[in-house]
Amino acid sequence: MTLLFNDPADFADEMTDGFAAAYTRFVHRVPGGVVRREGTATGEVALVVGGGSGHYPAFAGLVGSGLAHGAAMGDLFASPSAARVRSVAQAADGGAGVLFCYGNYAGDVLNFTEAQERLRADGVDVRTVLVTDDVSSAPAGSPERRRGIAGDLAVFKLAGAAAARGDSLDDVERLARRANDRTRTLGVAFSGCTLPGASAPLFRVPAGRMAVGMGIHGEPGISDDSLPTADELAALFVDRLLQELPDDVAAPAGGRVAVILNGLGSVKYEELFVVYREIARRLAAAGVTAVDPDVGEFCTSFDMAGASLTLTWLDDELEELWRAPADTPAYRKAPQALTRREHPPAGAAAAEPSAATPGPGSEASRAAASTACAVLDAVAAALDGAADELGRLDAVAGDGDHGIGMRRGSLAAAAAARAGHDRDLGCGAVLVVAGDAWADKGGGTSGALWGTALRAAGHRLGDGDAPTPGAMAAAVADALAAVRQQGGAAPGDKTLVDAFAPFAQELSRGVGGGSLAAAWRAAARTATAAADATADLLPRLGRARPHAERSLGTPDPGARSFAIAMTAAADRLTQLEETS
Amino acid sequence: MTLLFNDPADFADEMTDGFAAAYTRFVHRVPGGVVRREGTATGEVALVVGGGSGHYPAFAGLVGSGLAHGAAMGDLFASPSAARVRSVAQAADGGAGVLFCYGNYAGDVLNFTEAQERLRADGVDVRTVLVTDDVSSAPAGSPERRRGIAGDLAVFKLAGAAAARGDSLDDVERLARRANDRTRTLGVAFSGCTLPGASAPLFRVPAGRMAVGMGIHGEPGISDDSLPTADELAALFVDRLLQELPDDVAAPAGGRVAVILNGLGSVKYEELFVVYREIARRLAAAGVTAVDPDVGEFCTSFDMAGASLTLTWLDDELEELWRAPADTPAYRKAPQALTRREHPPAGAAAAEPSAATPGPGSEASRAAASTACAVLDAVAAALDGAADELGRLDAVAGDGDHGIGMRRGSLAAAAAARAGHDRDLGCGAVLVVAGDAWADKGGGTSGALWGTALRAAGHRLGDGDAPTPGAMAAAVADALAAVRQQGGAAPGDKTLVDAFAPFAQELSRGVGGGSLAAAWRAAARTATAAADATADLLPRLGRARPHAERSLGTPDPGARSFAIAMTAAADRLTQLEETS
Repeated sequence: MTLLFNDPADFADEMTDGFAAAYTRFVHRVPGGVVRREGTATGEVALVVGGGSGHYPAFAGLVGSGLAHGAAMGDLFASPSAARVRSVAQAADGGAGVLFCYGNYAGDVLNFTEAQERLRADGVDVRTVLVTDDVSSAPAGSPERRRGIAGDLAVFKLAGAAAARGDSLDDVERLARRANDRTRTLGVAFSGCTLPGASAPLFRVPAGRMAVGMGIHGEPGISDDSLPTADELAALFVDRLLQELPDDVAAPAGGRVAVILNGLGSVKYEELFVVYREIARRLAAAGVTAVDPDVGEFCTSFDMAGASLTLTWLDDELEELWRAPADTPAYRKAPQALTRREHPPAGAAAAEPSAATPGPGSEASRAAASTACAVLDAVAAALDGAADELGRLDAVAGDGDHGIGMRRGSLAAAAAARAGHDRDLGCGAVLVVAGDAWADKGGGTSGALWGTALRAAGHRLGDGDAPTPGAMAAAVADALAAVRQQGGAAPGDKTLVDAFAPFAQELSRGVGGGSLAAAWRAAARTATAAADATADLLPRLGRARPHAERSLGTPDPGARSFAIAMTAAADRLTQLEETS
Repeated sequence: MTLLFNDPADFADEMTDGFAAAYTRFVHRVPGGVVRREGTATGEVALVVGGGSGHYPAFAGLVGSGLAHGAAMGDLFASPSAARVRSVAQAADGGAGVLFCYGNYAGDVLNFTEAQERLRADGVDVRTVLVTDDVSSAPAGSPERRRGIAGDLAVFKLAGAAAARGDSLDDVERLARRANDRTRTLGVAFSGCTLPGASAPLFRVPAGRMAVGMGIHGEPGISDDSLPTADELAALFVDRLLQELPDDVAAPAGGRVAVILNGLGSVKYEELFVVYREIARRLAAAGVTAVDPDVGEFCTSFDMAGASLTLTWLDDELEELWRAPADTPAYRKAPQALTRREHPPAGAAAAEPSAATPGPGSEASRAAASTACAVLDAVAAALDGAADELGRLDAVAGDGDHGIGMRRGSLAAAAAARAGHDRDLGCGAVLVVAGDAWADKGGGTSGALWGTALRAAGHRLGDGDAPTPGAMAAAVADALAAVRQQGGAAPGDKTLVDAFAPFAQELSRGVGGGSLAAAWRAAARTATAAADATADLLPRLGRARPHAERSLGTPDPGARSFAIAMTAAADRLTQLEETS
């Protein structure tokens, strides 16, 4: 919902003031909207766009060189009045005529048309091209009944580029019409926005559902479906849009398209990129080339949750215009001179991690590796089960992802250990590859520390002799030392060291009894007690804390997850001893 | 919350795939992250940034010419592993050394430091500058305990520009450190994000509250406050940041600052601009010059609701670097050659609406104008009270803003009429200025049509003779004709014409009886009945529908609001007749 405003009645005006204040290097405020700071060059056709506010960067954010010359700005979701449109057009006019280009909505058509009539009466040559890209608003045979949504950007971009190269008003109008005829968008929505001061959303979509074809103001769509996966949404978008080709495009294969994957407001960039991954795959599979795709927010509806895919089928001329430079507050393309080399950088080939592959281990060490695999499996299973609890623990003072990271890291470590064992690695090498995998997949502080611990233990154990209980205790001591060296934490800092240090000490003491499992179990109990003790209000080092921060803390998730892992390891070692 | 994903465990990898697929013109994917498509020029210092994913455009979206050379990408909110950082640095290295620059978090420091050590062992000169801009994470005297948030962008931009102009590693490091020393950010949060596949938000802020200083992963802030207005938030931001100046800046006055107003995800552009309006005012009042401010989303936390303000205190060298060109997927600055003229466009002066000011009306017409004002006041009050109901009606098939638009338009019309009456305008002129105001402030279809209606009626009545009931009926008939001509709607199209046409007919019939109030009341009853009848499933023309759309419809809000307005007018006319 919209949270930040003053008097809701002033919202649109204040927004325009703020926009113009921030982007004086691009725009100049005039009654009714904004025009380019530098004005329109004499003899250049002026592209004037516009519509209701609430869709930023549509429309004011698209004013600048290579794109629009002016934007007429209405109130929230309301067409600008004819007087506003006329005012902006007068300020934008460079003497070569004006092209009005805007989405096909009744209010906008009414007001822009009235402005057009008044301007023509004043002797200004004004033409209009309506954007009608929304395939879900009417059948293909009735483009005049289709709404304009994110395809606005594609049509504006192509028309603006034509104006920038000096095309006549006839030509700019013709190209804009061609651009619109070749532009298709399909949108979906998951929830609506709440306007400034409103007590309820403008519209609602039931939780877990998706409105296919819902418009950017909540206009009803064509169907209602369950929430898709990212790949399913990509399939819906691409399959539908490839069904409706321009008249002169016989089949998708061989086609070249401008692509705009647009977020409506609160479906964020990361999600859009996951969706784009599958869009790219599907377009490529259909033989369609995506030209300079844009993934981001180009036509929004405040914080509405939704997304749309736009395809514009390019011919040679349109492709040149699509690739032409533009520079506006919210949309920019570098000049062609900056076109990039199409080969990978020289350093890339060298960037693959160069793991020196160890040779096979001795038979005894390979047998110990088998045990290590079983223990790592048990650790991963235990951390998997405890992930939610660890996340909650971490959320008190950290960022709540400790459980996720431990799960990810331990699962990767277990899988890498299995793969190493299958390659006949010894116990030491298996622990090293497991440590690499934990660090890489677990990420963050805990991933780095667990990776370090496993690598240090592996290096100590080596791949020759069978690891005795004493050797195991020494390996654990090495692991602790490496963790302390890397993390810089001492016991009492409320990190995993608080559990790790007493564990190592107890293990070292206990292995004299001859049973690794029994010693490990006793050590694990000590670690659990130590983790419990970290629940005091004492300093701790959390992942998402500043590096040097030692804040008053909370139960430490690193100590807790260490205790959970060691307890699981003890259980598994006991089982193995009992069955052998 | 995050809605679009496949297997949550694959999210970060798939996101990176999709990002690299969309922006092949900018970046090349390498193990662990991305580097520039064109690589790093031989002899150019490589700026390598990075951190956990989930903050787009931080960090991968900032890779490109003039900014970063590579970004090491971790899992969601988790530091990249040392192996990933090393891999990206190797791919980015142009032989002149590498600067690591990233936010000050424990996990990132651990992994980047380990990578730095390994790279140094390989003979690569690597330096590190931590970003510590978050003023709420520790006192000013302890920058090493401060987190890095949106100020990342400012530091990266300045360091990247220094590398681009060919500075040595020593110089790039020195400038980056200077940039960080002069960069301050204050952030606030209103709600947390929900990660892919998670069942609950990472953190919560109570409804109606604001967490001041909360970090971008939900790290606890410094205070909890009630939800501010946009202006109050601007005051909080500016006042706090102006308290902490760099050592060599004695007072804010005369200072020049790079400004980044950042949205965390679902506080949207329009809100940010409203806030920026007051930020700009306060900076100017303090004598501080904002240089090339950026308002948008630069360091996000999925769809977290929050915002931050960053100020970087520029000296001459830093200002040159801040203004230098950059071209990345999400952040671009045009080359200096495109610096814009600082004067308004020629057309702007002519853009003020040129209303020909009418002279004073006759005494009789001025008296009638007084009646018109009273009636418009009553209409505005009635529409104000009915705004929510009209909004709900409109939400069924339109965009739900009919009530808001009618309230805005009618209030503006009533105010303009009063102002006109105070200037001694006659009844006709008062209706014309009221119509202009309704069209301009009401916006949309309804604003345009009501504006047209009032203007047509005003032109018919003129400013001379006192309007007789017969003249009033004729004026209403003219208004109807103008509306039908402009809107293109016929009775049965489910627009306000469905109520307006029978109203005009009944009024024309009824004025023969001599009482305008009585005739108006009868006509208003007819209009109400007609509006009720529009509830049938018949075509209608809605504001947010495509222009030519005639969809199966719902009760028409335009007819309903017309009936409400005419009933209020009848009530007021009756009162006036009774008291005269």
